[in-house]
Amino acid sequence: MDLLQAAALAGVPIEGDCGGKGICGKCRVRVLSGGPGKITPAEKGCLSPGELAGGWVLACRQKVTGNLVIETPVPGDDDRSKTRLKLLKRQEPGAALDPPVRKYFLKLNLPSLEDRTPDLERLINSLPGGEIEADLGIVAGLPRLLRGAGFQVTAVLAGNRIVAVEPGNTTGRAYGLALDLGTTTLAGYLVDLVRGEVAAVSVTRNPQSVFGADVISRIRHASYNEDGLHQLQEKVLEAVNEVIRRLLARAAVQKEEVYEAVVVGNTTMVHLFLGVEPSNLALTPFIPAFNRSLELRSAELGLHLPASGRILVLPGVAGFVGSDTVAMLLAAGLDRRESACLAVDIGTNGEVVLAARDRILVCSSAAGPAFEGYHIEFGMRAVEGAIDSVVFGQDVQLGVIASAAPRGICGSGLIDAVAGMLKAGIIDPAGRFVESEPDRARLRPRLRSRLVKNGSGAGFLLAPGRLTATGKDIVITQRDIKELQLAKAAISAGVRILLEEMGIGAESIEQILLAGAFGGHVRKESALAIGLLPPVPPDRIKSIGNAAGDGAILCLLSRAARTRALALGSRVEHIELSSRADFYDRFVDALPFPDLAD
Amino acid sequence: MDLLQAAALAGVPIEGDCGGKGICGKCRVRVLSGGPGKITPAEKGCLSPGELAGGWVLACRQKVTGNLVIETPVPGDDDRSKTRLKLLKRQEPGAALDPPVRKYFLKLNLPSLEDRTPDLERLINSLPGGEIEADLGIVAGLPRLLRGAGFQVTAVLAGNRIVAVEPGNTTGRAYGLALDLGTTTLAGYLVDLVRGEVAAVSVTRNPQSVFGADVISRIRHASYNEDGLHQLQEKVLEAVNEVIRRLLARAAVQKEEVYEAVVVGNTTMVHLFLGVEPSNLALTPFIPAFNRSLELRSAELGLHLPASGRILVLPGVAGFVGSDTVAMLLAAGLDRRESACLAVDIGTNGEVVLAARDRILVCSSAAGPAFEGYHIEFGMRAVEGAIDSVVFGQDVQLGVIASAAPRGICGSGLIDAVAGMLKAGIIDPAGRFVESEPDRARLRPRLRSRLVKNGSGAGFLLAPGRLTATGKDIVITQRDIKELQLAKAAISAGVRILLEEMGIGAESIEQILLAGAFGGHVRKESALAIGLLPPVPPDRIKSIGNAAGDGAILCLLSRAARTRALALGSRVEHIELSSRADFYDRFVDALPFPDLAD
Repeated sequence: MDLLQAAALAGVPIEGDCGGKGICGKCRVRVLSGGPGKITPAEKGCLSPGELAGGWVLACRQKVTGNLVIETPVPGDDDRSKTRLKLLKRQEPGAALDPPVRKYFLKLNLPSLEDRTPDLERLINSLPGGEIEADLGIVAGLPRLLRGAGFQVTAVLAGNRIVAVEPGNTTGRAYGLALDLGTTTLAGYLVDLVRGEVAAVSVTRNPQSVFGADVISRIRHASYNEDGLHQLQEKVLEAVNEVIRRLLARAAVQKEEVYEAVVVGNTTMVHLFLGVEPSNLALTPFIPAFNRSLELRSAELGLHLPASGRILVLPGVAGFVGSDTVAMLLAAGLDRRESACLAVDIGTNGEVVLAARDRILVCSSAAGPAFEGYHIEFGMRAVEGAIDSVVFGQDVQLGVIASAAPRGICGSGLIDAVAGMLKAGIIDPAGRFVESEPDRARLRPRLRSRLVKNGSGAGFLLAPGRLTATGKDIVITQRDIKELQLAKAAISAGVRILLEEMGIGAESIEQILLAGAFGGHVRKESALAIGLLPPVPPDRIKSIGNAAGDGAILCLLSRAARTRALALGSRVEHIELSSRADFYDRFVDALPFPDLAD
Repeated sequence: MDLLQAAALAGVPIEGDCGGKGICGKCRVRVLSGGPGKITPAEKGCLSPGELAGGWVLACRQKVTGNLVIETPVPGDDDRSKTRLKLLKRQEPGAALDPPVRKYFLKLNLPSLEDRTPDLERLINSLPGGEIEADLGIVAGLPRLLRGAGFQVTAVLAGNRIVAVEPGNTTGRAYGLALDLGTTTLAGYLVDLVRGEVAAVSVTRNPQSVFGADVISRIRHASYNEDGLHQLQEKVLEAVNEVIRRLLARAAVQKEEVYEAVVVGNTTMVHLFLGVEPSNLALTPFIPAFNRSLELRSAELGLHLPASGRILVLPGVAGFVGSDTVAMLLAAGLDRRESACLAVDIGTNGEVVLAARDRILVCSSAAGPAFEGYHIEFGMRAVEGAIDSVVFGQDVQLGVIASAAPRGICGSGLIDAVAGMLKAGIIDPAGRFVESEPDRARLRPRLRSRLVKNGSGAGFLLAPGRLTATGKDIVITQRDIKELQLAKAAISAGVRILLEEMGIGAESIEQILLAGAFGGHVRKESALAIGLLPPVPPDRIKSIGNAAGDGAILCLLSRAARTRALALGSRVEHIELSSRADFYDRFVDALPFPDLAD
């Protein structure tokens, strides 16, 4: 019997797409005791040397001959490492790998009556650079370490601080951690600083969500409960430590080999992660405790990293525009573009960045949670069972995540649906369902048959109850369309104001970058159709994935990139929309959809 | 009944010299509950306002009318604050008070929709200087603190780091701690950084002595016991924390008002205090783990000071010449002398410093513990009952510490006795008791009658058993004289080598400074008579007390002094006696006493 079958018999679910053929690599498990058996060529093909060394195998390729204990990948844990390999080369053409953490293998002279230099000075004198410091924890153990290693050691420098001293030559191994703290999702990247690659990725839900889905409810929890801030910090630290443990296990890396972490996140998440009083972020005039970059030691937070390890929190810009946006700017190279470039990261807050003419403008636009499926009648997040694409022809064709029976609709599906309804003439540019007989008569028959009454208003039936997972009809309501209009008008008014501030028109935009998970799902044509993005040829629009995480990774791999990131916080100009008299006008102007009849 | 009598009845010993007259101030106690009653003029005369505010009273002046709880001063606790007031002005004529810890009272603009600067940036932008940092612990509480104080706060800077932020204007109060870690004694000085005064002094025995009286036995304890280093560190930290608590109570200062500590000590004590592996200090080639200055946060050691408080360990010179010598050099101004100056700190190790011609030479000479009374037949430390002066006339006159019955003889008494015996012709320059009849006949009769047989050799009777506390004769033996010769030869050879290295003769020495407790007790004439010091007119010899503590205090009060101290570590040239071929010759040359017949 193979391990895949044995696990199924034991009631342990293991994923697999290829039917046990050793191709898809999804049935990976880790053998903790009782194995593994012989590693097959299929496993060598699907798993990295680090994974194989860590005990990972393919369940479909391993024979079971006795008792064994296995670990299965945690659901929701997303290994995107393959797509991220060689990230540095991708993002920084021609840039040399030059991590801020540096390792030096030193063959020190042995002390003698003629050379009685103290241990620490002997070490520091052999290192390049000026004023080098060492934590007490490093100094305390140095005499024993140096003598145990015959005075041949590797010193690890983070900036001008010695963060580790290791016996022998360990320059072949060095790791850093990039952390992207999102309101909903925590993403950790273990970065191989020697090879310039991402060695492992682990993504988990932010467990602070038990105290509220959005930042405001979490800030309230911290403000109105005596121990609230501490609870929130503890939750996220526990989750981050679990992410670190998974990353280490997956890449077969020791905690002691991870010398620094670069942390990015929205302003609230960074406050909560560091245990910094967040109340004033929710009270006018909305003042953060800090925005600059902070450097601390791992021990100050209790992270599952070496006590002397450096934690660098990247700077934010202002207000709700946090270090995740700075990291996104960095990854997208917006500080070095010659031509005008717009970057949009859509979430509950939509961050909009416009780079042109040597200036970088940013605004944060409260789009509300419509793009994430909240406040939409049948809205849901982009998980299994969500309708994430809607194609209009004679009838509509639905795409559902994981090809499951539909449960609801997520942001990208909603934009598709509304764009299609607009093109098909089901709604007018004001967002209203057409009601006059002549208008209705012009609709294709199958589409017309989907027009339903939903409560007091009109609605468009996407999926009848007999086809859905819940047995209920999934309908786009008039109210859903209004919610989408409000959300897209917020983004769109932000874009408009940045363009005016910059003194350029939409036609000057050479590229639009869509960041974040939503940016990877939404179809360009639909986003253009509803006017979420300014009118540009679709080939100028590009999705750049989790650019915040990429920016944090870059800061681990390149000193030049880090220098740019630290400068960005003060270089970027923040445009505060809520204090602008013209914002409301632009917002109202942006509520209608583009008139496709034009 | 007064409190002094009540305490005696209750079996609580309270000191007092003046017989309850309210003059000596020694019967000070602190009333913890049940009082104190009316404060008398006598108490106002003997106690400082800080002490009175802290509940200290004179037991002889307070009437007892009901139950009360008192705290008595811990024996060995030595309040020398009065003699140390205005230290800065004494040591640094014309120098301005300019502590490295600075306080700034800030009236910050209130945040508004027009000024949304984050809290930390708002604070830092109002402070002078460049790159200012703040610990996470400061940032975390900043929003609440600023708003609670109406944005009028006092920021405390240690260098470029914010170590505290306090509501309102607290610029009138700021304290620092100077710590002198001796092998035998720990001395703490609470320094008022606003007035430039020592507010309180507390001295206690180093409790590490349970693991051995000298540094070598403590290093062995740390090396040969798994938990040894930790035990030693814990002992000294506990004692230091107790010293801090006493200082705070005595001066009525809050822990949070002490923003930094300057630590000095011999190399071994500093290693043990910081928990740094000391083994190699006792193994050839005797390599310390570090010698440079270290800066850390109080929390890293667990000191009873604010977590963010700065701890500065001054640099040492080399080998056994530690930061206490650097501090002594600083206090004595040896780095700024125009004329040649010799400074000697005599202890188990005798540190000898010679400053001349813009050079500073230092050597450490293993004098052994003879000057502290060890290895002397009736030797003892300079405590109650020790003969600390011996005056020769027709007979000898003894001075005994605390005018008690003698129990033994301490270092200064021994030097007096031997100097007197030499002048009186009882011993010859080789250190031998004269034996020939003509020589003996020339002695004054009463002195001659004190010549006794002690065991196998000759001896000189200082005090017959009927006058001593132990009932035993107190005798100076031939062996004691040899021990003293070895000890003084070690110091004297060191002085000689430094003079040769500098290329000057003893006659060029303009001043000899005697540091430490021993330096305060020894009589110049006797020290000159036995050849412990080079032959200079006695008025060129000066005792400077605990100059190491003074140097640490100066580093709290003056940025210029601190800069000098930090530079001294590398500026001073260390002469390693044990590796010099000529040391043994000089040592043997120095064994005889000066021939007073010349």
